[in-house]
Amino acid sequence: MEQTKSTNIILFSGDYDKAMAAYIIANGAAAFDHEVTIFHTFWGLNALRKDKPPAVKKGFLERQFARMMPRGADKMGLSNMNMGGMGPKMIKQVIGKHNAMTMPQLIEMAQEQDIHLVACTMTMDLLGLQQEELLDGVTYAGVAAYLADAEDGNVNLFI
Amino acid sequence: MEQTKSTNIILFSGDYDKAMAAYIIANGAAAFDHEVTIFHTFWGLNALRKDKPPAVKKGFLERQFARMMPRGADKMGLSNMNMGGMGPKMIKQVIGKHNAMTMPQLIEMAQEQDIHLVACTMTMDLLGLQQEELLDGVTYAGVAAYLADAEDGNVNLFI
Amino acid sequence: MEQTKSTNIILFSGDYDKAMAAYIIANGAAAFDHEVTIFHTFWGLNALRKDKPPAVKKGFLERQFARMMPRGADKMGLSNMNMGGMGPKMIKQVIGKHNAMTMPQLIEMAQEQDIHLVACTMTMDLLGLQQEELLDGVTYAGVAAYLADAEDGNVNLFI
Repeated sequence: MEQTKSTNIILFSGDYDKAMAAYIIANGAAAFDHEVTIFHTFWGLNALRKDKPPAVKKGFLERQFARMMPRGADKMGLSNMNMGGMGPKMIKQVIGKHNAMTMPQLIEMAQEQDIHLVACTMTMDLLGLQQEELLDGVTYAGVAAYLADAEDGNVNLFI
Repeated sequence: MEQTKSTNIILFSGDYDKAMAAYIIANGAAAFDHEVTIFHTFWGLNALRKDKPPAVKKGFLERQFARMMPRGADKMGLSNMNMGGMGPKMIKQVIGKHNAMTMPQLIEMAQEQDIHLVACTMTMDLLGLQQEELLDGVTYAGVAAYLADAEDGNVNLFI
Repeated sequence: MEQTKSTNIILFSGDYDKAMAAYIIANGAAAFDHEVTIFHTFWGLNALRKDKPPAVKKGFLERQFARMMPRGADKMGLSNMNMGGMGPKMIKQVIGKHNAMTMPQLIEMAQEQDIHLVACTMTMDLLGLQQEELLDGVTYAGVAAYLADAEDGNVNLFI
């Protein structure tokens, strides 16, 4: 019996286009029967933020980060040609026009395909993000868990 | 008989310096007898654009993207210290001074070494790029083709 | 006997947060008994610059690069929300508050764990950096050495 292949993506970036690339590859790999994990760290955690999170208690710095960072995948900017938010609008228009999937749809598909969406607990701490603020079904882990998956992985990417 | 090793690079970035890194690694891997693929997606597609493409019909949004994105590798900016175009000029000056290779030369070398230059059809659609606008010899494929190569690859990178 | 696993990270970025991610993964992999190499190229070389380098002779362009690039990991900016240097100050404050490690501490830990810190000689040439300006204990090599390690590596990342 052949061993299950695996794809392990670190999503570090908080850009809409990079997150799209990560989720498209992840969903493709899941369709190929890979065991797939997206490990969200630093700005990539923003893709997992709820649109309307419950109120949580935060320190001053953590409140600043929370306020300045995009709340959820739909609000992220582009890595290129962001143009004060006009770029993301254009991208979403062409996504609609070409029947491609938006980030919220890609995340939903990933969850339906049992892709492991992991949030890096160390950087959650740094940025002051709490579990209540992130999507349901997310797993919480650190770099050791990432390495345990990736060291036998087939497609390992840092995005 | 040893199996051929493979290097599979996703070039997502449209920055001159990141594209240089991608092509230098790719050319090095080809010299090591790896089977090498560079899968150009999103802004990385700009590296493959012809300097003087034939006229093609485009919608309004697609014309805006085409106009704003660099036409070919030689016109790309830097990821760092771009300084309104002065950075790329400085990099090209030091490339000349140190007898390093420019992007157009690196692409030519890649083609001579039979590196597979692949353009991602899904993001071509999104950005409104057509096959006539890209260099000759480019292959057109999607994420499934990338995964088929990369899942048995040795060096898989996202740049 | 099981073969030693290996982690090979290309650090291309000169951003504080991306360098942190690279060094956290590297230190984690070393703790897992991986053979670990961080190959510093382009702006990633700045992480290895000495705070107070000896005077070295440079050409005009090389002096400009040296002046504009951050001198050492502690002076690097953020990939996101840099806000003219306020972002890095905030990150360093939360690092302190959460007892996480700063970049200088992560580099020191990497050296204690015998992680190979490699500087890419080709891009040192391009940016006009000389060995005297980089930290002691750094190894000097090119893309061929990187590929020789990475082609049998387990976790290969481009950051």
